[in-house]
Amino acid sequence: MKIINQKIREEVIGQGRAVREAAKDFAQSSSRVKDAALRELSERLQASSQKIISINEEDLSAGRAKGLTDALLDRLTLTEERIENMAEGIRKIVDLEDPVGEVVREWRRPNGMRIAKRRVPLGVVGIIYEARPNVTIDVAGLCLKSGNGVLLRGGSEAFRSNQVLAQIISESLETVGLSSDLVQLIQTTDREAVQVLLGLNDYLDVLIPRGGPGLIDLVTQESTVPAIQTGVGNCHVYVDSTASLDMALEIVDNAKTSHPAVCNAAETTLVHKSVASSFLPQLYERIGDRVELRGGAKARELEPRLEEADESDWDEEYLDYVMAVKVMDSFAEALEHIDIHGTKHSEAIVTESYERANRFLDQVDAAAVYVNASTRFTDGGEFGLGAETGISTQKLHARGPMGLRELTTTKYVIRGSGQIRE
Amino acid sequence: MKIINQKIREEVIGQGRAVREAAKDFAQSSSRVKDAALRELSERLQASSQKIISINEEDLSAGRAKGLTDALLDRLTLTEERIENMAEGIRKIVDLEDPVGEVVREWRRPNGMRIAKRRVPLGVVGIIYEARPNVTIDVAGLCLKSGNGVLLRGGSEAFRSNQVLAQIISESLETVGLSSDLVQLIQTTDREAVQVLLGLNDYLDVLIPRGGPGLIDLVTQESTVPAIQTGVGNCHVYVDSTASLDMALEIVDNAKTSHPAVCNAAETTLVHKSVASSFLPQLYERIGDRVELRGGAKARELEPRLEEADESDWDEEYLDYVMAVKVMDSFAEALEHIDIHGTKHSEAIVTESYERANRFLDQVDAAAVYVNASTRFTDGGEFGLGAETGISTQKLHARGPMGLRELTTTKYVIRGSGQIRE
Repeated sequence: MKIINQKIREEVIGQGRAVREAAKDFAQSSSRVKDAALRELSERLQASSQKIISINEEDLSAGRAKGLTDALLDRLTLTEERIENMAEGIRKIVDLEDPVGEVVREWRRPNGMRIAKRRVPLGVVGIIYEARPNVTIDVAGLCLKSGNGVLLRGGSEAFRSNQVLAQIISESLETVGLSSDLVQLIQTTDREAVQVLLGLNDYLDVLIPRGGPGLIDLVTQESTVPAIQTGVGNCHVYVDSTASLDMALEIVDNAKTSHPAVCNAAETTLVHKSVASSFLPQLYERIGDRVELRGGAKARELEPRLEEADESDWDEEYLDYVMAVKVMDSFAEALEHIDIHGTKHSEAIVTESYERANRFLDQVDAAAVYVNASTRFTDGGEFGLGAETGISTQKLHARGPMGLRELTTTKYVIRGSGQIRE
Repeated sequence: MKIINQKIREEVIGQGRAVREAAKDFAQSSSRVKDAALRELSERLQASSQKIISINEEDLSAGRAKGLTDALLDRLTLTEERIENMAEGIRKIVDLEDPVGEVVREWRRPNGMRIAKRRVPLGVVGIIYEARPNVTIDVAGLCLKSGNGVLLRGGSEAFRSNQVLAQIISESLETVGLSSDLVQLIQTTDREAVQVLLGLNDYLDVLIPRGGPGLIDLVTQESTVPAIQTGVGNCHVYVDSTASLDMALEIVDNAKTSHPAVCNAAETTLVHKSVASSFLPQLYERIGDRVELRGGAKARELEPRLEEADESDWDEEYLDYVMAVKVMDSFAEALEHIDIHGTKHSEAIVTESYERANRFLDQVDAAAVYVNASTRFTDGGEFGLGAETGISTQKLHARGPMGLRELTTTKYVIRGSGQIRE
């Protein structure tokens, strides 16, 4: 066991070193070269569709044999349409503006020195993700466009699928004369590899965990590489006393049911007491057949068809067709409930009050705060940022959907003519 | 011992909770209120000058008794002039633009939703620093201006001085009607308090260590709170074959001797071989009486008065009147030397070549890269950012001098009219 661990350790460190080396030169690459690699990748994905599907089928068979849930198997599945979507995603990244080289600000000092704050690649990005093979392509595309190398650790259930995708990425890079070392997939499903990544400070500039709370906790607790927390979303829709109830119904329905398995889906509806007796029966009529609605005591008085919620429901990220419902005595109570139970992801109010809209936007501490719109919009594509590497729920470096800019850092470039400091 | 630890733990956690509570309301405070508190602080510092000096004298006596070095005692010393400088620093922060509320970008989506990326305070900032009491005031000023609460852990040698300064900050806050809980100084010199801070994720949004490599390492290895690495600077000046040697002498002299104890001071001069035989004797003539110059083998052939350097000198942050000198066979060798031995802080080239200037700026990976100017300019004040909370040598969130903007994060504010996601 010790010997196996040592071998894995050396392999992962070797891959890290190789990505780092390749990334140094790559940081200076022109947009033209990077876009050529991405176009090549897009074409190769389409051309290899049948091959990818047949290898993906091996992962699926193994997954079925292991008894994976239908939801997990669905995430794991690659179809012709999904591969076309991946290729299309890469073409969209080609169309995005290259953030590298952008001068964020430039100014001249009284002594004549010019200071420019210039956007540069981070260097090497490490990503730990679950069994969604499309992430392999999305993340590689974003990292390459932004001038970064990337070390990928995908979920073990998607291992074969990820390998063939990584192979296609390598071939695309080589075709346009770039180093295939730039994108590396960890070649083992052993957990030890994750432990190595958590301490790979010499070769990784950032580590992004994309997964459930267990993975996020592990990274927070143990990573010495700077990490960005993503994704846990206990999102609320608060229906204010001033709300248009028709609009509120549309928004709650959409926020819950359009894709319950994702982090920007709403988990709790809060309703001001003055509209609750009218709103709750309407809500039940509208989504009660599709969604298990769990109400607090007051809510169940007004709409007895609700299931019974307990205190733990306010903190639950169901990611499913379940929603908690609670009656609020006041706007202030709604702010407080969100402050206590929210995960600083996405929070929405439905209101016609100018003052409450502004107070909600000002006072709720979250990556995205909405007035009269669905929380489901918290997404790089929906925001118009292009694809995303995840949604940051922390405050340092990146907050909300992380697009290309969030995969860069800056450096100060100072042009002088002999200036010295007094 | 266990019981003492538990007591310290509870106290620090209690302070963290109190700052967090106070910071919630404070995040919405207007610039007017924040500036009033800072003006009050500036006036109170001046008015309390004698009191501060006499309490500082107690720290100094204890420090002398403990055998602190002259350099440490100097950092610890507060004089009337230094207190006036602290007060003046706070007045300068008043004059800086409040970063909170700034809209970084705003755009409209095709569905009519307006998305604004708005700058907001981080929340609560934790700082661990050494025995420099002026840091207490600088950091509190910057954190307050940017709408943050702050939990301060100062060096034990400055404990009494920090306490009186923290008291003055509290009084200033109360005078303008703000909570004195916003700025809290850890009330023990026990190391256990640092351990508590490293895990205080519930109440701290960021932890900034300002100190030597030991402290930085401790924070990198053990903090679960997101941290920003600051300060280690093994900075180089590379004198190219195309350099004006007069300018190079001015810059090397300034970069080394204007303040050797700080992180932006240069530690190594690299000289292209084609100018080394002319430059090295001139360098020795100019600063050899004040600076111990340690040369590699080639450098000592050309200027035998140099002391002998060994391999470890290339990695040394002397922070003293010592400088390493090495002859480079080529521009490329200089880039490579900096890549291997630099700490990504500040790097300078002296050159008259347009092409080499640009290549140096592009290829050297550091927070600040200079052509024909001293590395000593890497500083919030010198850059025109106002005061700074430190100089980040990492890539996430902040790189280079951290001013007010670096103490903020952003949130997405979305104004809709009933939009739902398809």
